[in-house]
Amino acid sequence: MTMTAPYDILITGATLLTMEASQPFISVGGIAIKDGLIADVGPAEKFTPRQARITIEANNQIVMPGLVNAHTHAAMTLFRGFTDDIPLEPWLNKVWQLEMRFATPENVRKGSRLAFIEMIRAGVTTAADMYWHAEATTQAALEVGLRLVNGVGIIDTVGNEGRQNKEEPTRRFIETYLNHPTVHPCVQVHSTYTVTTDSLRLADRLAQEYHLPLITHASETRTEVQTLLNRTGKTPIGYLDALGMLHPGTVLVHCVHLQEGEVELLARKGVAVIHCPESNLKLGSGIAPVPALLKNGVVLGLGTDGAASNNDLDLWGEMRTAALLHKGVTEDPTALTALEALHMATLGGAKALGLDTLIGSLEVGKRADVITISLDSIHLTPRYDIASLLVYAAKGGDVRNVIIDGKLVLHEGKLLTVDEEQAKEEVRQIAVEIAAFSPDDTTRFI
Amino acid sequence: MTMTAPYDILITGATLLTMEASQPFISVGGIAIKDGLIADVGPAEKFTPRQARITIEANNQIVMPGLVNAHTHAAMTLFRGFTDDIPLEPWLNKVWQLEMRFATPENVRKGSRLAFIEMIRAGVTTAADMYWHAEATTQAALEVGLRLVNGVGIIDTVGNEGRQNKEEPTRRFIETYLNHPTVHPCVQVHSTYTVTTDSLRLADRLAQEYHLPLITHASETRTEVQTLLNRTGKTPIGYLDALGMLHPGTVLVHCVHLQEGEVELLARKGVAVIHCPESNLKLGSGIAPVPALLKNGVVLGLGTDGAASNNDLDLWGEMRTAALLHKGVTEDPTALTALEALHMATLGGAKALGLDTLIGSLEVGKRADVITISLDSIHLTPRYDIASLLVYAAKGGDVRNVIIDGKLVLHEGKLLTVDEEQAKEEVRQIAVEIAAFSPDDTTRFI
Repeated sequence: MTMTAPYDILITGATLLTMEASQPFISVGGIAIKDGLIADVGPAEKFTPRQARITIEANNQIVMPGLVNAHTHAAMTLFRGFTDDIPLEPWLNKVWQLEMRFATPENVRKGSRLAFIEMIRAGVTTAADMYWHAEATTQAALEVGLRLVNGVGIIDTVGNEGRQNKEEPTRRFIETYLNHPTVHPCVQVHSTYTVTTDSLRLADRLAQEYHLPLITHASETRTEVQTLLNRTGKTPIGYLDALGMLHPGTVLVHCVHLQEGEVELLARKGVAVIHCPESNLKLGSGIAPVPALLKNGVVLGLGTDGAASNNDLDLWGEMRTAALLHKGVTEDPTALTALEALHMATLGGAKALGLDTLIGSLEVGKRADVITISLDSIHLTPRYDIASLLVYAAKGGDVRNVIIDGKLVLHEGKLLTVDEEQAKEEVRQIAVEIAAFSPDDTTRFI
Repeated sequence: MTMTAPYDILITGATLLTMEASQPFISVGGIAIKDGLIADVGPAEKFTPRQARITIEANNQIVMPGLVNAHTHAAMTLFRGFTDDIPLEPWLNKVWQLEMRFATPENVRKGSRLAFIEMIRAGVTTAADMYWHAEATTQAALEVGLRLVNGVGIIDTVGNEGRQNKEEPTRRFIETYLNHPTVHPCVQVHSTYTVTTDSLRLADRLAQEYHLPLITHASETRTEVQTLLNRTGKTPIGYLDALGMLHPGTVLVHCVHLQEGEVELLARKGVAVIHCPESNLKLGSGIAPVPALLKNGVVLGLGTDGAASNNDLDLWGEMRTAALLHKGVTEDPTALTALEALHMATLGGAKALGLDTLIGSLEVGKRADVITISLDSIHLTPRYDIASLLVYAAKGGDVRNVIIDGKLVLHEGKLLTVDEEQAKEEVRQIAVEIAAFSPDDTTRFI
């Protein structure tokens, strides 16, 4: 006869921020995990340490749902800081030139692995990625242990996957991962300005057929909107609407340059929006009308975008930037609260990606994507309001433990899944090649 | 006969970012420190470890001038996160109510000590503070080992120092520290809307008499500008100009709501401006026209403001926010470069505060305020451009060593001057009293 502990992992003694409406906040709580699921959540006295194989005493920590990085291009860590502070057109040309040469499957796997380690260290448990070689990115996520939303990116006008058959690889990726516990397929199409109408229609058809999210960039820049207006007489949003592609399940990334009535249109159609404030600022794209989207009830997620336009993959910074930025722009300190920023980075992102029945809050029966944040740091002293503390003062480096799909991935600051030093070293080697390939403007390279 | 090492501290093997025009960047360099001064800077091969009492091997680090936090209210760490996401008027009322009760000299010393430790951990070596009980703040800076610009804050309409004689304590503070190596006196007056014309004139007279900077908040909010217009027919900038107070040595904090022609006026008069982007955003004040100030040659420093409106004291975040924000607002990714943000946070701030002959760059003969940044972190992998890396990816937690006035204050991440745990515990005890005094809105307090 063997004795088995009822739980795999138990975290006790922490302050819980559940992001669940009926019980958002438990001041001294515990959470029990078994078979990948949240088995119990409640006051700490419910639990005793002997009930679990692994017990994490988290007396001076906050426990909350893992963060959802709802839009990124993970492998672009390869180009982090390579070319900044220049206008968008030469920036895009430089990046695309680098991608044509260096975005091989092997490099994408290595760059993505680095990105996913960085994300986990900063409390991200789910990332929605869009990039070349979806399979390579997926392998990196499986290695590192991150939950991934991914699909074959459909793009026609640039890069090394244009002019190829798109339907077959898209279907193959979807069918490979349709019932996978941590890889969630979606349909991805780059944008209205880089993709033909046929490809847009194909993407929407596949998304409907498999009941999957359809993700695309939309209205990121003023130039993009003008390009579509010139080409079709419609804005990107208007064009997608004309194709019948604005409906629940459609996920639009950026939405910086929305025109009169488009906020209300997106709300009415049940479309979700992913806000990437730091990337939009850094590339000089502009500032999305997030308070208006919020007020109209649009589901909002938060993304870092790629490391070439951010340049980190830290959703704490993104929450903070979102919460600060919109207060400043509207001159209204209530425009986007700390709790609303936390919602965007957890349950909001999960809902946008169609995963809110699985993740995004600490609720019994959901998959166990759980993080703990240490309150030891001097910048988290003293403590009053939990949401203010997390959004306005906490940093990625305060994350202590990360559990994804019930598996402990980061334990007391130590990554358990892959060799982090090797992952860094492999990317450094690729970076040496990249710098040598493009020796202009390298005077301040180190 | 005793053998003495020629240098007190030697840092070798690092990449140097000097912020000095003739030699901004040394890819493998060293810096030698003796008697509080920078004794030598150059390629690493110039130096041998035996030349110093303390040698820091910094092969995988960047060495740069310590950051200058050019505007803060350090003791407001006591109220960090107490009251956020509410309109400015009730926020100010709440903060002033708390200050009346809790800003005692002893609490100010403890809150400032916490703030200065937090700053040092994030690479700040100089702070310009403005708060009640200047002497208490100064004692905290001396304890912790931070370089401080400080003065007696002159304010008439709120708080517990109004209606008092201002000249005598201002003179006393100045004369106490006039030749101090790390405490640099200045004259401080809160603002045109909280201070009488007599007090403004007194402040300017004292600043001129002692050849010291005159620091004041100006044009932070739309309401402030309207208040001055109603009262005097002039904007805050216009009113200071009418009093003859715009001249070299005058330092205006915020300058968010500048009117037509005021950017050029500030430039012409040689006035310096301190930009506090995160505080201006968080309080819903607005966004200062920094690219225009830069273009017109106004000397610019960068400040965190107090922890009640930020909520951290991390100048890395402030550099990043400044560099991103103005790109987004102007829709121009060249609006404020990473190097310009670094300049604001080092030499620019030093110049604004009249300290640029002493600090702000790594130059032989300057006081040795030097920091090292570890490049080990995953978010600093890979590496290309040094300025991009520092501004867009580095974090306060990457700072490894901090030297202030030639003294090692943070060594390989360990604070050498005060007991950090005790400093945190003492502030936590004050916070318990603060929460108990004001029990409304504490439902999400932890």
